[in-house]
Amino acid sequence: MVAELNFDNPTVVSLVTYGAVLVGKMLFLLLLTSIVRIMRKNWANPEDAKAFSNARSNEEAKRMTVRDEAVERVRRCVLNDMENIIPFLLLAPMYVLTGPAHDTAVLFFRIFVVSRFVHTITYLFGLQPFRGFAYGAGLFVNSVFVYQIIKNGKF
Amino acid sequence: MVAELNFDNPTVVSLVTYGAVLVGKMLFLLLLTSIVRIMRKNWANPEDAKAFSNARSNEEAKRMTVRDEAVERVRRCVLNDMENIIPFLLLAPMYVLTGPAHDTAVLFFRIFVVSRFVHTITYLFGLQPFRGFAYGAGLFVNSVFVYQIIKNGKF
Amino acid sequence: MVAELNFDNPTVVSLVTYGAVLVGKMLFLLLLTSIVRIMRKNWANPEDAKAFSNARSNEEAKRMTVRDEAVERVRRCVLNDMENIIPFLLLAPMYVLTGPAHDTAVLFFRIFVVSRFVHTITYLFGLQPFRGFAYGAGLFVNSVFVYQIIKNGKF
Repeated sequence: MVAELNFDNPTVVSLVTYGAVLVGKMLFLLLLTSIVRIMRKNWANPEDAKAFSNARSNEEAKRMTVRDEAVERVRRCVLNDMENIIPFLLLAPMYVLTGPAHDTAVLFFRIFVVSRFVHTITYLFGLQPFRGFAYGAGLFVNSVFVYQIIKNGKF
Repeated sequence: MVAELNFDNPTVVSLVTYGAVLVGKMLFLLLLTSIVRIMRKNWANPEDAKAFSNARSNEEAKRMTVRDEAVERVRRCVLNDMENIIPFLLLAPMYVLTGPAHDTAVLFFRIFVVSRFVHTITYLFGLQPFRGFAYGAGLFVNSVFVYQIIKNGKF
Repeated sequence: MVAELNFDNPTVVSLVTYGAVLVGKMLFLLLLTSIVRIMRKNWANPEDAKAFSNARSNEEAKRMTVRDEAVERVRRCVLNDMENIIPFLLLAPMYVLTGPAHDTAVLFFRIFVVSRFVHTITYLFGLQPFRGFAYGAGLFVNSVFVYQIIKNGKF
């Protein structure tokens, strides 16, 4: 019997739950970006500065679009999430289709989720080399998925 | 009976149709980036300037890779799509697996699609605070999906 | 009989195999970014420069975060992958759900995979207009998928 992508498969129930937690974390960072922009009065576009920080002239609005390091740090954290969490969310269902043991699959899901929460916290607070380890753990899980899928797949 | 991810499920038919429209919109922005680059003679790499804008010297090619605000605006619009549409396209199938009422699900799909088209238009023409509202509506739909998936899921 | 997203469907087996190869290529570029950063002693954050390139002072660490063209080239290559491979991996399963002929589907998968490998190599070595052609071929496959899904879908 082949593995199905529906809620009769407990591995799928587990995957969507952890997957929603991961995407929820990404959405929280998008919200945090807006909060930090308001606090730092720093915007991506002049029209944003006028609408949300009461910039009165075009010159004042333009000054509010100069790179701000606090905003850029959150942006880099979002981008790193996209480069790692999105591959995970694309690979994980393919991996589930190969029919892995439930406990093994859930273990990988948990390692990945923990690694990305540690990554976000260590990124926002600038803690190295802990962020490097967390990044490596996530990349390791994704690499295992790639290997397992190709091993069970057919070109 | 659990929800299945196939065309017997009308919610899936609806999701893939709206999903293709959303990705089609993203692909159009990639095309628009190339068009704006050609019009502005502005490129990401010196070799692009030589191949597509007839830059004759390395110096001329390098001058064509300096940040151009019109190009950067389209780029930011693409990036914002990726940060919001891709999470939607990952969350929506998970949400469908939880077995929502068809009409409720389609309503959320429609709100999201409209919000992202409004977002793109208001981004390209620099219209605030309308873009902020559109952005918020999309983020709201994604947040509802996260909540509903976790509520129906199991860690 | 509708198309199913499981391993009884040979098109799905083919898709996940090529999909894993594509994501594997993206993960390799993430690894390459780290390698180039170490070689160029160039980092996204001052704390990275201290942890991984032995920057001794805050000033030295900060100097190692100035834009480096070799690092930026790999970064742009990663970003282009995300803008094209992720849409492919989201569209392809939707396209499979519309029930295409197996041989046609696999042909599109192969064209896309080849186009993205050519794209990566030509990007890293700065070869134009070949990169432009590879980019166009990938965009063409994604556009065909969008068209086929909407044609077989229902709003």
